[in-house]
Amino acid sequence: MPQLRKDPIIGRWVIIAIERAKRPGDFGVFPDKEDIAQDKCPFCAGHEHLAPPEIFSARGVRVVPSIAPILRIEGELDRHGLGIYDAMNGIGAHEIIIEAPQHISNTAQLPVEQVEAVIATQIERIKDLHNDNRFKYVLVFKNYGHAAGGSRINHARSQIIATPVNPKRVKEELAGAMKYFELKERCIFCDIIKQELAEGTRIIAEIDGFVVLSPFAARFPFETWVLPKKHSCDFYKLDKKEFSKLAAALKVALSKLSKALNDPPYNYVIHTAPFRNTHKPGYWRTIDHDYHWHIEIIPRLTHMAGFEWGTGFYINPTPPEDAARFMKETICDAEVK
Amino acid sequence: MPQLRKDPIIGRWVIIAIERAKRPGDFGVFPDKEDIAQDKCPFCAGHEHLAPPEIFSARGVRVVPSIAPILRIEGELDRHGLGIYDAMNGIGAHEIIIEAPQHISNTAQLPVEQVEAVIATQIERIKDLHNDNRFKYVLVFKNYGHAAGGSRINHARSQIIATPVNPKRVKEELAGAMKYFELKERCIFCDIIKQELAEGTRIIAEIDGFVVLSPFAARFPFETWVLPKKHSCDFYKLDKKEFSKLAAALKVALSKLSKALNDPPYNYVIHTAPFRNTHKPGYWRTIDHDYHWHIEIIPRLTHMAGFEWGTGFYINPTPPEDAARFMKETICDAEVK
Repeated sequence: MPQLRKDPIIGRWVIIAIERAKRPGDFGVFPDKEDIAQDKCPFCAGHEHLAPPEIFSARGVRVVPSIAPILRIEGELDRHGLGIYDAMNGIGAHEIIIEAPQHISNTAQLPVEQVEAVIATQIERIKDLHNDNRFKYVLVFKNYGHAAGGSRINHARSQIIATPVNPKRVKEELAGAMKYFELKERCIFCDIIKQELAEGTRIIAEIDGFVVLSPFAARFPFETWVLPKKHSCDFYKLDKKEFSKLAAALKVALSKLSKALNDPPYNYVIHTAPFRNTHKPGYWRTIDHDYHWHIEIIPRLTHMAGFEWGTGFYINPTPPEDAARFMKETICDAEVK
Repeated sequence: MPQLRKDPIIGRWVIIAIERAKRPGDFGVFPDKEDIAQDKCPFCAGHEHLAPPEIFSARGVRVVPSIAPILRIEGELDRHGLGIYDAMNGIGAHEIIIEAPQHISNTAQLPVEQVEAVIATQIERIKDLHNDNRFKYVLVFKNYGHAAGGSRINHARSQIIATPVNPKRVKEELAGAMKYFELKERCIFCDIIKQELAEGTRIIAEIDGFVVLSPFAARFPFETWVLPKKHSCDFYKLDKKEFSKLAAALKVALSKLSKALNDPPYNYVIHTAPFRNTHKPGYWRTIDHDYHWHIEIIPRLTHMAGFEWGTGFYINPTPPEDAARFMKETICDAEVK
């Protein structure tokens, strides 16, 4: 069983994935191995017997449990102290969303209808996990390419991790947005979108109710966000009619990154409000008004990040205005259509 | 002039290093280039004309300004708003500490007397920068190896960046340590050291007043901390008599990592309290009691980190107890002597 441990100083939870335990010799061997050949890909149509049994499937998108889950679904939550430390057993869910039947590696290359089916599936799975009162948050993310933590199987997929605690970054965003709301009685993300659209220098694209932009204080070169113009704190409450529009915006963002930066590895993370069903009324009072879901995409331009995550001190060599201009000028097929 | 920009949501400052501006084509070319040959190394003895003029030198350690400074020393601080955003001009200092006259790449390979000279120099430079009221913090860190942000020049050096703002991670640590102190009237780091020494499972080495350990909630495989047993919040106030002991502890930590993991790239960051000379009395009232300086070393075992820095949600495949045991059992020359 994996274990969740809380950093005693700054309060961040870390998953110690005991069953994946690595010995020193296990590191560094990865880059030398070859990628899995397409005829052995466990995620291609016809190879379903090579992957675990399906949890869900629709419109060519399939969901299976992770074969190396970082959290386990079975059991009751057990929070406990270890002297001054706090720990908890690793209860959660870890699912893999196989984005298409074909052996396509980058979501940017999928037809927009297929990206729409992926979004519909992500939302369907969040709704289902929402029924489990043990979970506080569902992280939806993608690791594309080795440098972004992707595996040797080049078949497009995203991942879902349901957690019994809220990730630190989410808590920080909620706290920051709440503080702004208390001061201004407006959503900070709505204000950001308004200012960005008025200024225009960091806007990459505007697609049918969605904005693609480089954030003002971007931590990484070509960091790119996709935000809905319409205020909402929960990604999973997105109206069905909006799925195709979000799919178009996400595809444009990923395609422009791919073309501008020569198919870079990247991560994307969907930032959405935590579940509120296990909290007493009042606690999350303002969240509907002050938080605003969005997608953050970070290309992994290797060797650029240094000591940054050790200090929370980021140095970005590419002004977001330059990144946005270049991305805007990079015309991709997704736009031409 | 570089620019400091504040993330409007979570309040983190980011340096936009405008003068280093990167175009998309500038990324990814780095790994193909060869390292600089020793006979062209600007940091070797006899090649001083290839590096900028010295700021300081003693016992074979030389300090020069960075040739690509991420912050500039000249000018007055200028904080200003840009609509809802906050920015500031990039005033600061960026210095390179050349750790030895010889072409040695890893600090682990330096004689312990030379490591001591490096520590003495780091402290000397912090003391000097402390006199500049524009600065709030001095980051001392090292990038070793390409994957850790190191350059193509394989000559051991560390870096110093003086900043007009406090890094987010430092603020979080201060806030966490203060909260614990308010509750317990004890330093959390002192308590951690006591519990770790009593338990022993995460202790890697104990050297003359210094403890080398794997932290309980380690974010990364083989993350290693060096802590002084004696309580003090300021690294730069370390007693001269202790320099050689810290040098021995740091050398043992780096040597064990190097041997256990086959010379991995790594970062280390010295975590120390911010300068208090520009604050009104009372504001930092408890800091002397509740913060505790230490060094955090993070080996960069590539492809292990995924979306972690995007979410503050870390997955560590190596329990710190396993890492500590392995590191303890890896006997290095530094210990044998």
